[in-house]
Amino acid sequence: MNFLRLVGALYRPTGVISRTYCPGAPEPCRLSDSLVEALSTAVGLKNISTSYAVREQHGKDESYHEPQPADVVVWPESTNAVSKVATICYDNNVPMIPFGTGTGLESGVSAPRGGVCLNLTKMDQVLDLHPEDFDVSVQPGVTRNALNSYLRDTGLWFPVGRSGCRRLAMRHGGDQRIRHQRRAVRDNAGERDEHGGRAAGRNDHQHSRQGQEDKIMAAVCSFPSVQAAVDTTVMTMQSGIPIARIEFLDDVMMDACNKFGGLDYPVAPTLFLEFHGSEKNVADQAEAVAEIAQMNEGSDFQMASDPAQRKKLWSARHNAWYAGLALKPGSKGCATDVCVPISRLPEVIVETKEDISKSSLIGPIVGHVGDGNFHSLLIIDPDDPAQIEEAHVLHERMARRALAVGGTCTGEHGIGLGKRHLLREEMGEGTFNVMKALKHALDPKNIMNPEKVIPV
Amino acid sequence: MNFLRLVGALYRPTGVISRTYCPGAPEPCRLSDSLVEALSTAVGLKNISTSYAVREQHGKDESYHEPQPADVVVWPESTNAVSKVATICYDNNVPMIPFGTGTGLESGVSAPRGGVCLNLTKMDQVLDLHPEDFDVSVQPGVTRNALNSYLRDTGLWFPVGRSGCRRLAMRHGGDQRIRHQRRAVRDNAGERDEHGGRAAGRNDHQHSRQGQEDKIMAAVCSFPSVQAAVDTTVMTMQSGIPIARIEFLDDVMMDACNKFGGLDYPVAPTLFLEFHGSEKNVADQAEAVAEIAQMNEGSDFQMASDPAQRKKLWSARHNAWYAGLALKPGSKGCATDVCVPISRLPEVIVETKEDISKSSLIGPIVGHVGDGNFHSLLIIDPDDPAQIEEAHVLHERMARRALAVGGTCTGEHGIGLGKRHLLREEMGEGTFNVMKALKHALDPKNIMNPEKVIPV
Repeated sequence: MNFLRLVGALYRPTGVISRTYCPGAPEPCRLSDSLVEALSTAVGLKNISTSYAVREQHGKDESYHEPQPADVVVWPESTNAVSKVATICYDNNVPMIPFGTGTGLESGVSAPRGGVCLNLTKMDQVLDLHPEDFDVSVQPGVTRNALNSYLRDTGLWFPVGRSGCRRLAMRHGGDQRIRHQRRAVRDNAGERDEHGGRAAGRNDHQHSRQGQEDKIMAAVCSFPSVQAAVDTTVMTMQSGIPIARIEFLDDVMMDACNKFGGLDYPVAPTLFLEFHGSEKNVADQAEAVAEIAQMNEGSDFQMASDPAQRKKLWSARHNAWYAGLALKPGSKGCATDVCVPISRLPEVIVETKEDISKSSLIGPIVGHVGDGNFHSLLIIDPDDPAQIEEAHVLHERMARRALAVGGTCTGEHGIGLGKRHLLREEMGEGTFNVMKALKHALDPKNIMNPEKVIPV
Repeated sequence: MNFLRLVGALYRPTGVISRTYCPGAPEPCRLSDSLVEALSTAVGLKNISTSYAVREQHGKDESYHEPQPADVVVWPESTNAVSKVATICYDNNVPMIPFGTGTGLESGVSAPRGGVCLNLTKMDQVLDLHPEDFDVSVQPGVTRNALNSYLRDTGLWFPVGRSGCRRLAMRHGGDQRIRHQRRAVRDNAGERDEHGGRAAGRNDHQHSRQGQEDKIMAAVCSFPSVQAAVDTTVMTMQSGIPIARIEFLDDVMMDACNKFGGLDYPVAPTLFLEFHGSEKNVADQAEAVAEIAQMNEGSDFQMASDPAQRKKLWSARHNAWYAGLALKPGSKGCATDVCVPISRLPEVIVETKEDISKSSLIGPIVGHVGDGNFHSLLIIDPDDPAQIEEAHVLHERMARRALAVGGTCTGEHGIGLGKRHLLREEMGEGTFNVMKALKHALDPKNIMNPEKVIPV
């Protein structure tokens, strides 16, 4: 055990010393009383906690990384309060770690050097909506669902990102749906973004859901091989069909989803599709894609346009993460997240499946196939170091397989703590050093979420 | 006259001294013989010039800014040659200025501190085309037309950007067409881009022109007011109609285009439209937009789908720049380039037209109205300092009008030399200092196109 006690002194960064986390062994706040007092004045007495339970909860996300609690958690209610906290942290060399909802997968919220965790959930105001300009400014604690409730009467709509995009505060790479490529929202805590205000020339628009866009059709189709499913996707995109979503599930994942949801989909590589547009347009799109699927020996489409039926049709995809975990009760998931040129996707998925099948683990696969991005959810017992290690080794091989074909080690989840060495391999030393220089220019004291992405 | 003669010594940066340009008075190359020799070895004897005529030609673009020649022009033929030139420049503190085709509008190619101009036109190879992945790597000297000739047999297509985007080498903000929002191409001189190779998860796809996308329909429609034309655009976008292009020309510009091209369009605010898709889809889109235009008292559509007829229909828009200049033979154009939230576009255009009408200048307007971006082309006599000053003052007021409604002083043309103070106003001191810090991190010796955008 390695508790650093600096109570009574001003906080000093622990440098490269990484604290050992001992579950259940409360670690005291290492900030001085006067520092805690100053933070308390900045955010208000009801918006600060040094309780170990609270700090521990804020130091972990949904990944298998071990929690690393900050010394204090604060809930700023305004940009001004954030600014005051930042000034105190800067003056005293204390790390700052932002916290959205803790749904990250790469340990972005952990505090390996301690410091102040800024929980942003109380900054949940929609600041400035301009329906004719298709833009809205929101505080960082606004969730997608909250925003869409707010937008309900405007005819506008903030489309869902990839499945993991649960909260805007996470600055998730989501919203990569094939059709709705642009955001209406900048997750911006201020009144005005830093780059030329609200003009669209440097940003862009969101399609609304009014008029022509009022129809949504869902479809599911299974294939004899991964190659056939990917070929269908590529041909659909080459045909310029403005399909809204294409999601891929492999046979292992379909099996898990069937078991989890009491469904009876074929246990085969499967595409989940969604079409948006006018009634006629949606029917045209679906017909064109069905033709392409048939050319690739796909099954007939199961289709639905009624909201409840659509939801049922897509439920397998929506519950995939939990369906995977349910294969082994009590397990945790290690979510990999590679992305490759779509032409290389079939071979990389097939090789990955072979690799997983040689291991002792199960690893169902879901993919945002239009982007060449896929995840295998490696199911592990969090108390078994051997399984964690095995997942780690599988993950590294998968990432390097992606890098070898010109891909990336992360399409969505980011780098966090676990992929820092892979980022370095992917970028090369030269580019990595440029990234380091930029980080240093923006954060000369290395107090902004230190150790993450680019360790200095 | 202010010739700095450093012949025979190693080059020293001229610091803040700005040289006075004297047309016709050749300024000698200020680099030492040994430095010119080293550059010559780096790029090859046939790829270097110190001739004053050549240097002068490379120091000017299509703007009214006065030319500022570099000391040497080189034509590197490979990334390796660029790298060698950069090493020599870095070691000797010599500025480097890239040159594409000289079609810029903000004096990006001028050399206020002298140095080496890198003309990239000999780096014109298409390196790596992946049709299934919708991506291609090209050297920086590849033009859009050259790329599209290369792509002709693949069914793919690199869409035109805004009208000013003549060459990829310029890293122009173009390709902002409403529909084709993503690039197939990264203008990347190397084999592999620096960010995760070719995977699409961090980039994105281009629609192809095959299958569903093989029909293009053009249309022109005039309106009783600027407001009516903009309202038509906003409603079209709100309806989710996937229109490919919407361009706006004001009454003054339409008059100029009529005169220039022997056309007889109504002298009124006018929208030029383009629809892409299947035959049926294109007809649906055009019908829907025609309905919206009628609601806004627009004229009947003039339509064309045959390539020659489309070209004729759009010729007014395509020739707008030259039509404007032809209003006063021998004149030059000062192209302004503001961008505002689309809801504020009508008032800003109307106020700008009033302001111009009170001046002694003519200033026809074109706009990429879907983006809230528009240009007034202020027609000036380049030999009349009073007119240049008047254009300058009009431009400043127009830019500040944009900033006041949350817009930006540049939607496309960039900052270059002329808008540096406006950028600073737009960003505010805090953000401007962050930009300076980033520039310094990337270019510690301030030799990469110094004085442009962010003077250090």
